[in-house]
Amino acid sequence: MTLRIAEIFGPTIQGEGALIGQPTVFIRAGGCDYRCSWCDSMHAVDSRFRHEWLPIQADQIMAEVEHLSGHQPLMVSISGGNPAIQDFTPVIALGKARGYRFACETQGSVARDWFSDLALLVLSPKPPSSGQVVDWTAFDACISAAKGAETVMKIVIFDQRDLDWARDTAARYPDLPLYLQPGNSETDPSKPVDPQHLADRMLWLVDQTVGQGWLRPRILPQLHVLIWGNKRGV
Amino acid sequence: MTLRIAEIFGPTIQGEGALIGQPTVFIRAGGCDYRCSWCDSMHAVDSRFRHEWLPIQADQIMAEVEHLSGHQPLMVSISGGNPAIQDFTPVIALGKARGYRFACETQGSVARDWFSDLALLVLSPKPPSSGQVVDWTAFDACISAAKGAETVMKIVIFDQRDLDWARDTAARYPDLPLYLQPGNSETDPSKPVDPQHLADRMLWLVDQTVGQGWLRPRILPQLHVLIWGNKRGV
Repeated sequence: MTLRIAEIFGPTIQGEGALIGQPTVFIRAGGCDYRCSWCDSMHAVDSRFRHEWLPIQADQIMAEVEHLSGHQPLMVSISGGNPAIQDFTPVIALGKARGYRFACETQGSVARDWFSDLALLVLSPKPPSSGQVVDWTAFDACISAAKGAETVMKIVIFDQRDLDWARDTAARYPDLPLYLQPGNSETDPSKPVDPQHLADRMLWLVDQTVGQGWLRPRILPQLHVLIWGNKRGV
Repeated sequence: MTLRIAEIFGPTIQGEGALIGQPTVFIRAGGCDYRCSWCDSMHAVDSRFRHEWLPIQADQIMAEVEHLSGHQPLMVSISGGNPAIQDFTPVIALGKARGYRFACETQGSVARDWFSDLALLVLSPKPPSSGQVVDWTAFDACISAAKGAETVMKIVIFDQRDLDWARDTAARYPDLPLYLQPGNSETDPSKPVDPQHLADRMLWLVDQTVGQGWLRPRILPQLHVLIWGNKRGV
C-alpha cells in the first residue's frame, strides 16, 4: 500500500501551535477534502499538483524521516492537505518502534483509528473566512477517535467574524486546549513577507482576545512565516 | 511584611519560553543579585531605580492581579530582577486559594521553598556574554527546592560562545526540558525594534542548533519584543 506524499522535509522547528519551536520533521500528505480560500499549501491540496505527490510505501517514508533526522528520534508532524484522508497506521507503527513520536494536524473532517497512536492531535476547524462549512458530527468523531491521545484545537483568525466564530466554537469544546493564530493573507511563495505586518496582525489578535478579557486561548504567530516567508520545505 | 515590586501589568501574552502565547499577568520584583551586560529590565535591577520599587503587602499585590484580570484566574508570572531574593510564599498562597497559577523566572542563584508551590519554575542560567558566573551548587539547590513543580531551563543566546556553553549546560541537565532564545541586543525602550533583525537572529539560532543536528532544545523568539518592541508594561 502506498501513500501520496507532497513533501518530507526537516528537521526544522515547528512554526505554530502547541509544539511551537520544537525540532520536527514534516510529512506533508497530498490531497484534501477542503478548498480553503486562503490555503497556504495548495501544492498539497489542488489536484493540479497531483503528479508531484509521490506514491510511496510506509517503510520508504520512515527511511526518509530517519535519513533527514540522522537517525535521531524526534517529533514527526503529519500535515497536508488533509492527512486523515489516507491511512498513516503503518508509518506511525514503524516510527514509534524506533522512538519517533507523531503529531498530526487536520481540520477534523475525517476520523481515523490511528489518531489514538499520536502524541498530539491538532484539530483545526476552519472559520468562515475559509469558505468551508464544518461538519461537527465528523469533528466530534475525530475527538472520540483520539481516545487517550492529547488533543488540542487551533483556529486561524483572519477577521472579526472568524474571531466571533472561534469564541462560539471554543464554548462548544470547553475541555480542549485552544490556540489562535493570525491568518497569513500572503500565500505566494515568491513574494517576500513583511515581518512588521505579521507583528501588527499579532498585536490586533492579542488586543481582541486578551485585551477584551478573553483569557483562555494561547495566541501564537506562524514563526516559520516570520523566519522564512512562504518558502516551501522549511 | 512587604515586597519590593517594580511593576504589575497585564493581562498580556507570555512572550517567551514554555508558556509562550499564554495570557498572563506579570509581577516584576525589584532587585537583583546579577548585573547582566545585556539586561533588558534594568528598571527592576539597578538600585538607581529603587525608589520606583513600591513596598507592597502580599494581599495588595493579589488585589492588583485580581483587578487587572477582572477576577478571572489565570497564569501569574513572577519575574524581575531576581524574584528569588524575596519571599513570595504569601502571594502564591493567596493566589492559589483563588484559582490563580504561578510561574517564576529566575537565574537559579537563590533557592526558595516557595518554588515547590509553582506550576512552573523557569531556570535561566546566564551564558558567558552576560558577564556573570553561574554558581552551580546554588542552581542545583533550586532544582531540588522545586520538588514536584515542573521545572524547565531557558538559555538566552547572543553568540557562538553562548551556544557552546548552552550545549555543555544542557548535557549537565539531561532531564530538564530546554528552551533557547536569541538575545535581544537592543534594550533601549525608546528605540524601535527591527522585526527583520529578530527574524534573522531566529534563523541563525535555528541553523546553529537544529541545522547542526542538535534536536533537543525548543527554539523560540521573544514575541513581546516582536510585537511591542522594548516598551515596558506589555
